Amino acid sequence: MSTPHSTHRFTRRLALIYSVAALLIASTTRLVAQTDPLPSWNDGAAKKAIVDFVEATTSQGRPTFVPAGERIAVFDQDGTLWPEQPMYTQVLYCLDRVPALVKSRPGLATVEPFKTILTGNREAIAKLPKAELEKALFATLSGMSTEQFQTDVKQWIDTTKNPHWGRRYTELAYAPMLDVLKYLRDNGYKTYIVTGGGQDFVRVLADEMYGIPPEQVVGTQAGVKYGYDEKGRPKLTKEPKLLLNDDNAGKPEGIHLIIGRQPYAAFGNSTGDRQMLEYTKAGSGDRLAMLVLHDDAKREYAYGPAQGLADSKVGTFTQALYDEAKQKGWIVISMKDDWKRIFTFDSDVVNATAKRAP
Amino acid sequence: MSTPHSTHRFTRRLALIYSVAALLIASTTRLVAQTDPLPSWNDGAAKKAIVDFVEATTSQGRPTFVPAGERIAVFDQDGTLWPEQPMYTQVLYCLDRVPALVKSRPGLATVEPFKTILTGNREAIAKLPKAELEKALFATLSGMSTEQFQTDVKQWIDTTKNPHWGRRYTELAYAPMLDVLKYLRDNGYKTYIVTGGGQDFVRVLADEMYGIPPEQVVGTQAGVKYGYDEKGRPKLTKEPKLLLNDDNAGKPEGIHLIIGRQPYAAFGNSTGDRQMLEYTKAGSGDRLAMLVLHDDAKREYAYGPAQGLADSKVGTFTQALYDEAKQKGWIVISMKDDWKRIFTFDSDVVNATAKRAP
Repeated sequence: MSTPHSTHRFTRRLALIYSVAALLIASTTRLVAQTDPLPSWNDGAAKKAIVDFVEATTSQGRPTFVPAGERIAVFDQDGTLWPEQPMYTQVLYCLDRVPALVKSRPGLATVEPFKTILTGNREAIAKLPKAELEKALFATLSGMSTEQFQTDVKQWIDTTKNPHWGRRYTELAYAPMLDVLKYLRDNGYKTYIVTGGGQDFVRVLADEMYGIPPEQVVGTQAGVKYGYDEKGRPKLTKEPKLLLNDDNAGKPEGIHLIIGRQPYAAFGNSTGDRQMLEYTKAGSGDRLAMLVLHDDAKREYAYGPAQGLADSKVGTFTQALYDEAKQKGWIVISMKDDWKRIFTFDSDVVNATAKRAP
Repeated sequence: MSTPHSTHRFTRRLALIYSVAALLIASTTRLVAQTDPLPSWNDGAAKKAIVDFVEATTSQGRPTFVPAGERIAVFDQDGTLWPEQPMYTQVLYCLDRVPALVKSRPGLATVEPFKTILTGNREAIAKLPKAELEKALFATLSGMSTEQFQTDVKQWIDTTKNPHWGRRYTELAYAPMLDVLKYLRDNGYKTYIVTGGGQDFVRVLADEMYGIPPEQVVGTQAGVKYGYDEKGRPKLTKEPKLLLNDDNAGKPEGIHLIIGRQPYAAFGNSTGDRQMLEYTKAGSGDRLAMLVLHDDAKREYAYGPAQGLADSKVGTFTQALYDEAKQKGWIVISMKDDWKRIFTFDSDVVNATAKRAP
């Protein structure tokens, strides 16, 4: 079957196969590059700002290129990665813990704020002064071992549903923010949560919800004390002693204490994130600062009070913050206009590449 | 030149080339697998314990297997990763900063401990009470911005030589510990420093010396305060306020605050590391705890006072710690017997694969 020129033909055929393979690889690469990295986002200034930032800081040879090890992005949690209405999730957890606390310390039953909390009357509870509420937080977040606390939070988070959506809290990550987390990580960014919430609380759920490991969660810190249990085994006990209030100016302070580097990108949604964004933007090169505006009463909530939105007890986004953002080039994300869907379980997704949470 | 069988021959030749290539790849892989991962270590119980631990925790299917994300190893610095004699490096840095401090605050010149420190009389300085010395540490480690502090430390560390070895401090990493850091990282471990030294101080040099980024340094923490410089730019100012004394029980507390997970391996060299090792070993599965004993007067220093070694003002390794280690299966590393060389610049290395620092 072979001819005198068969070796030559075989070689040419091999060359052809290689060429076709190379073409296929090149077109696949182009296809991958062209796949939308932010499928839950509508096209617009906010989406473009994220893509431009990633390209500017990760393209070799650009003056704004950032070495992989220095790529740090920080995210507020409440109102930025998941909802904070009608109340911060951790506060709901603490309120749920009060009956068990009172059972172990019956004297508290007649003392405020425990007395009111035990009634279960949400309106009366909402009216408790902040200082009173904090007493309940400290009491339910301290006294146990860190291990016991993790077990309790995990059990609560696995079994409790958010009253507004009737879904478990871990299902309530904002889909567009999951896109951003993945997109940044795919481009060598280390993603951190920097939350006003309790560091130990958020660490329990951050890996499952956002793919963020415990050591990449910065939050409000209470002291822990090293000691031993009744069997002489080492344990760390949570103390009612505030080490860091990771909100407002506490956010850049917490970033320094835990991370030790200035972030390149920061995402927030309220006045509590102002200093974190300011600190991030103060660094050299290309830095990204973004604020989520909750202006979507239909699919989530609408509150500000920036831009004439309703006032809110949690996650305040003032008009002053809005004006500062516009002036300083911090990008305001409109949930209504910029987000194609809010949650991964939302059905109004047309993009076939969008992944659904299990 | 071609024959009717040339295609067949060509195909056979190709097959032969593939076979040879496959053999070469296989033998190279075996060669790599057989290369000593700890070339600066002599064969013995200490070296074996490290290799056994890595194999037990990283071999798929073993009951002691640890998923990659949970592989955390912690290392004390002074006396474990670099020398702490004749004095902790950071204390020498602080003493060197005193003249500049007094220049900016002349009133201090006649006040202790600054008066004695200014004389430069090392013997008199060594006799200063601990509380007096701490005044000098706080004064030289606070008041400036975090950025200014980083610049100062970097400049000092780049230009100052250790009086004993006449080498820059960054050249004084223990070669066997560099082996361990690399070996653990090559096997998916995240390596952390957990030091009684200042977190901000050690962060400046850890990446260059050990390949450990700032966010993986846990140390003694002073507060920082967010504010603005004279041009209105954000800055963090170091405060003379102790947040965490990362020594003794403070080490597991610091590990919880910054890392939030129990380590699988811990390396120390003194009573200040006792609780860190105990906390590490208290976890389930296979955990490794090791203590460096400085018993090598010829190549480094010999001090304990365990095993009849001389007493020491820094890095105390008591006989009680030694006995506890033996009883609990914490491995004691003898610098004299277990380490083939101490530093990367030592000439008594026979292993050709050992890399030298530039």
